Amino acid sequence: MPPRRDADTIRILVATDSHVGFEERDPIRKDDSWKSFDEAMELAKTEDVDMILLAGDLFHENKPSRKAMYKVMRSLRKHCLGEKPCELEFLSDASDVFEGAFNQVNYEDPDINVAIPVFSIHGNHDDPSGDGHYCSLDLLQASGLLNYFGRIPESDKIEVKPVLLQKGQTKLALYGMSNVRDERLFRTFRDQKVKFFKPSIQQEDWFNLMAVHQNHHAHNETGYLPENVLPSYMDLVVWGHEHECLIDPRLNSETMFHVMQPGSSIATSLVPGEAVAKHVAIVEVTGKSFEIKKHRLKTVRPFITREIVLATDSRFKRLAKTNDNRTALTAELVKVVEELIEEAKSEWLELQGAEAEDINEEDIPRPLVRLKVESSAPDGGKFDTENPQRFSNRFSDRVANVNDVVQFYKKKVGSSRKTKDDKDVPDEAVLAAMAGIDNVKVGKFVREFLAAQPLKVFPQALFGDAVHQFVDKGDKHAISSLVDETLSGSMKEMLDLEVAGEDDIENAMDRHRTKLDEDFKASGGVSRRPRKRGKKLPRPATWDSDLDGEWSESPEAYGPPSEGEEDEPAAPAARRGKSTAMGSDDDASVVSAPAAKSTRKAPAKKAPAKPRAPAKAKTPAKTTGRGKKKTVVEPSDDEDVDDDLVMMDAPPPPKSQPKRAAAAKARQSTLNFAQSQAKPSTARELSDDEISDDDAFEPVASSSRRR
Amino acid sequence: MPPRRDADTIRILVATDSHVGFEERDPIRKDDSWKSFDEAMELAKTEDVDMILLAGDLFHENKPSRKAMYKVMRSLRKHCLGEKPCELEFLSDASDVFEGAFNQVNYEDPDINVAIPVFSIHGNHDDPSGDGHYCSLDLLQASGLLNYFGRIPESDKIEVKPVLLQKGQTKLALYGMSNVRDERLFRTFRDQKVKFFKPSIQQEDWFNLMAVHQNHHAHNETGYLPENVLPSYMDLVVWGHEHECLIDPRLNSETMFHVMQPGSSIATSLVPGEAVAKHVAIVEVTGKSFEIKKHRLKTVRPFITREIVLATDSRFKRLAKTNDNRTALTAELVKVVEELIEEAKSEWLELQGAEAEDINEEDIPRPLVRLKVESSAPDGGKFDTENPQRFSNRFSDRVANVNDVVQFYKKKVGSSRKTKDDKDVPDEAVLAAMAGIDNVKVGKFVREFLAAQPLKVFPQALFGDAVHQFVDKGDKHAISSLVDETLSGSMKEMLDLEVAGEDDIENAMDRHRTKLDEDFKASGGVSRRPRKRGKKLPRPATWDSDLDGEWSESPEAYGPPSEGEEDEPAAPAARRGKSTAMGSDDDASVVSAPAAKSTRKAPAKKAPAKPRAPAKAKTPAKTTGRGKKKTVVEPSDDEDVDDDLVMMDAPPPPKSQPKRAAAAKARQSTLNFAQSQAKPSTARELSDDEISDDDAFEPVASSSRRR
Repeated sequence: MPPRRDADTIRILVATDSHVGFEERDPIRKDDSWKSFDEAMELAKTEDVDMILLAGDLFHENKPSRKAMYKVMRSLRKHCLGEKPCELEFLSDASDVFEGAFNQVNYEDPDINVAIPVFSIHGNHDDPSGDGHYCSLDLLQASGLLNYFGRIPESDKIEVKPVLLQKGQTKLALYGMSNVRDERLFRTFRDQKVKFFKPSIQQEDWFNLMAVHQNHHAHNETGYLPENVLPSYMDLVVWGHEHECLIDPRLNSETMFHVMQPGSSIATSLVPGEAVAKHVAIVEVTGKSFEIKKHRLKTVRPFITREIVLATDSRFKRLAKTNDNRTALTAELVKVVEELIEEAKSEWLELQGAEAEDINEEDIPRPLVRLKVESSAPDGGKFDTENPQRFSNRFSDRVANVNDVVQFYKKKVGSSRKTKDDKDVPDEAVLAAMAGIDNVKVGKFVREFLAAQPLKVFPQALFGDAVHQFVDKGDKHAISSLVDETLSGSMKEMLDLEVAGEDDIENAMDRHRTKLDEDFKASGGVSRRPRKRGKKLPRPATWDSDLDGEWSESPEAYGPPSEGEEDEPAAPAARRGKSTAMGSDDDASVVSAPAAKSTRKAPAKKAPAKPRAPAKAKTPAKTTGRGKKKTVVEPSDDEDVDDDLVMMDAPPPPKSQPKRAAAAKARQSTLNFAQSQAKPSTARELSDDEISDDDAFEPVASSSRRR
Repeated sequence: MPPRRDADTIRILVATDSHVGFEERDPIRKDDSWKSFDEAMELAKTEDVDMILLAGDLFHENKPSRKAMYKVMRSLRKHCLGEKPCELEFLSDASDVFEGAFNQVNYEDPDINVAIPVFSIHGNHDDPSGDGHYCSLDLLQASGLLNYFGRIPESDKIEVKPVLLQKGQTKLALYGMSNVRDERLFRTFRDQKVKFFKPSIQQEDWFNLMAVHQNHHAHNETGYLPENVLPSYMDLVVWGHEHECLIDPRLNSETMFHVMQPGSSIATSLVPGEAVAKHVAIVEVTGKSFEIKKHRLKTVRPFITREIVLATDSRFKRLAKTNDNRTALTAELVKVVEELIEEAKSEWLELQGAEAEDINEEDIPRPLVRLKVESSAPDGGKFDTENPQRFSNRFSDRVANVNDVVQFYKKKVGSSRKTKDDKDVPDEAVLAAMAGIDNVKVGKFVREFLAAQPLKVFPQALFGDAVHQFVDKGDKHAISSLVDETLSGSMKEMLDLEVAGEDDIENAMDRHRTKLDEDFKASGGVSRRPRKRGKKLPRPATWDSDLDGEWSESPEAYGPPSEGEEDEPAAPAARRGKSTAMGSDDDASVVSAPAAKSTRKAPAKKAPAKPRAPAKAKTPAKTTGRGKKKTVVEPSDDEDVDDDLVMMDAPPPPKSQPKRAAAAKARQSTLNFAQSQAKPSTARELSDDEISDDDAFEPVASSSRRR
């Protein structure tokens, strides 16, 4: 391998789930979200990266407030525009990967000086909705501040085409798949309706980076995205949506790609996963290898959480047998909170580094504090707990969450203390992961309501969806649209009746309603009212292009689908080296680029570690105040290759890596795509007989699989 | 006068009230609004103007849909960015006239190529509201696409500072006063709390252009902005808000400035004023004189309206005595509508000019048609009219307004036919003018409701305001904010009671509620929750500036208030020439620049016309299809000066114009302001004794003035 040169290194700031607008009406926390987003963007500027990758949920609300939008625009314009020319060569046909009126990468617009292009997919919070199916990222794209890629025009037929970028010798294929409802996406993968496209030339030279925004954990059978369904030729997958910062890349031992879960830049719920120190990372890609540098965000409001079991804790258990122990118990708990507040304070000060000396006491942000107290007493005893809100209010001028500092709960009768391994109960990490999904209540309420008194005219599922659109997505016309559409359909149905008795009319309405509901369910509950599109023009040059823009299947645009590539890694040889284990967080972890020999050893090497399952927080990581950590993932020596970990269904890796094909020395600067199919071809029926061992869709016991 | 050179001419496209988003959910009309806005922006590009001035209501909704915002951003980016450097020199201190994170004129941002800067005030539809007091224009400003000026941080203390621009020898002082509730603004003027600032040097050289967005007509005593309260040193006032296109500048004979009312680019109500052909104008300012070129907008959906009095119309009156005349009457009315549709069609085709030949029948837009029918029959007769909706639906595939083609009404009993001169009844033009105010219903409803059952806890006026914010401004937190604030106040009040009986508590709540209501009324009903601002930094260079930004009264920034200038024209001599009359619409109208002799005569000159009152449409103007009209307003010969029309309270104009003072050859490029006071110093008490004859605040009979 030639010595690494900066000219061949693409430096990418990776951040996600900034949730700008979260708690923006809270008097204390209102500016937290945009400040951390701004910190990340500022870091991109000071670190002089080549680009920024965001993996969804930039905004907390589907229709962000003007303030939220303003703050984001401000940060982008301030930090990402500039005189410095972007060094990335854009090799895609822009109309393949972008849509809308300005379907070009923003830094190629001659009228805007983009120093650091931002690429983003949408998340579940800022997804498109309403008339025209626009989302907030469309506005940022229209203003030239961001490149919105990885759109999903149809969630039951997904095509993922990479943004192709090159700097020096390094070629980056950036894949994005914006959020789709997990169950829906699962089904689309199952039906083999997800197609990934690859550059048709020099396929083995590309570093394949993918951004997704889905559940990472198996909350239920189909409610998540299994890592293994993603094409194994990926090199690194950036996982948005999950708020716990697990930013150190973890090797998936089956697919042999690394997965990085940056986590949110703000805590949107007070669970341990959110207490893990918030980081963003700079990923440095050189050829087929990458390194990451972690940066701890300094603006994040400190959040500290602790769990106490009164019955076993030495400070408390003696109180159980004291009569009227409320005062004593409260006093002791207050002390614990005081300790937590102090702890948060010193951690924050440590994090500020040298700047801490100039900080006044009153400028230290009030921390978020959560004390979870299991208050079951041993037989014959009792813990007399105070009202939680009253308890919390004692700290009203010292914490940011003034009403819920403490949570009391009792262990379930008949079960021992809830353990982390209890599979029936989602644990804290899962709850943290689900923090993004805060729309559950309305849907549940509507379902319950409708179960009690079924609808006669309106289709139940569509009605529920309309309410969801109205409440959670701020689409104030969702319900009137439903009414209009349903009624006009019903009317037609009834007019078709020649002579109608009352019964006929009721039956007709029934039929129509049932049909609508079935259609809705058959479509997987995809929200209606998709963007209307005309025919796609190849590279539309006029402004009318935003009326068009549907993906065409034009044979000119894409290379012929290559059957043999389905389920295969793009460059089988490239899999070899990637089998090297990840070290622990602080150690260097290594990935080999097969065509290149590493000229230096990784600083510390360990035996291949067991591939970890999608990680869950066991305990909130206590982070020291250091701002930066560096994890190196770089080419290893060939001796380190662990053959057992080579892709299972890939052909055995050739002994020597073919030189870059002469034909691949492309004259063209815009590449064609070869089409490859997403992996789980075995999962299409979900019947027991057909399930193979490596069925990516079956993380849950197969007995529960029948429907 | 030296020969006019382009290098000394500032060309300004003037448009207003685009109402983007209007009827965006109507299947037929949904794209009308943004298309006409786009046409205007495109025209600016093809005509290669130096700048664009918008006078408010760019958006129809306070919280525009994503689509509306997207379309506007698209038009601005597409047509207003570009390689061509903007030739306008920016002479203001930017932080004096802009606010927010990017308080500079957009074309001076080195990272954005702005070819045509857009300057806009806000209107009543797109005014700031909600947390942080942001409006849609703030977003456009943050994205660098527009310059939002003429902000009103406090509506009871208004400071209007001009944007100072220069091209060649022409100096333009651009004043803007964004919309304020009319009654409120009236009061602020009355209280002499409106201050206008002038450049401190070369005051007589500036062409003073002002944009406002207020009622132009005296709907009631205080519900409008009288032209005469604006400083008489203005040269041209661009009046937004009124939808009728009265774009030809009209001389105000008292103030001697011209007023141009461009009108909306879309009909938001089907009244005759909206049927006047929609235009935008290019104002060409050279030195102290200006010309305008009108451009008829071609994308505007044709709207044609007619009024018929059945009893007197020769086609109908014979039917009154026929029994069962419904069929015959309907048939005849259908014919009238058919005629109107044909008329609209040929007018539209004519308007398209040469392009019309390539237009297919089905591509001709369906017109808006409104037939207003007075259906009172002579004694002994009867007109049996059809249900209006059923009648309208006959044209459902041929008109755009399928449900309200016809309107039947009967003349009031005891009054003769309503005349245009009837002062008690607002006529069509006034109704058209009020079309912008479509929020009346909710407020009225709330008032009626509260009148029936008064509130015990919440202050009535604040409650009404909160409902208004919630419903009309889309501020979904308005009501919860009210609840929080009121309750915490009430609680405090009650806690102050030492020992409280039930009566005391009720009294305390009463007191608090009444106080809040009184405060609200005292503040003139200004919506609460203003933007919180810190101290203003002079020329803040860092991004933190958007946390600051309040106008400072820093003596460095502005010249000392010059008492003598109150109520005086800026450059008395400049008033002289401007007294020349406006001709009719098609003729050249003339304004003289006193320091310069005209080297050519206006093409056609008429005797000075009587100054018109703020114009009302008498009949819907029938416009021929020509796209452009040119009205020339240029320096006249001195002989044409009509001394009678010289400003009343200005000192007599000196015979010769002083040469540009040597001192005025400013070394500084950023000008200081001298402060001048708005005019109506005589109106401060509004008692009969004090009212002088020229009291601008008394357009209505003085007997109704007492309150």
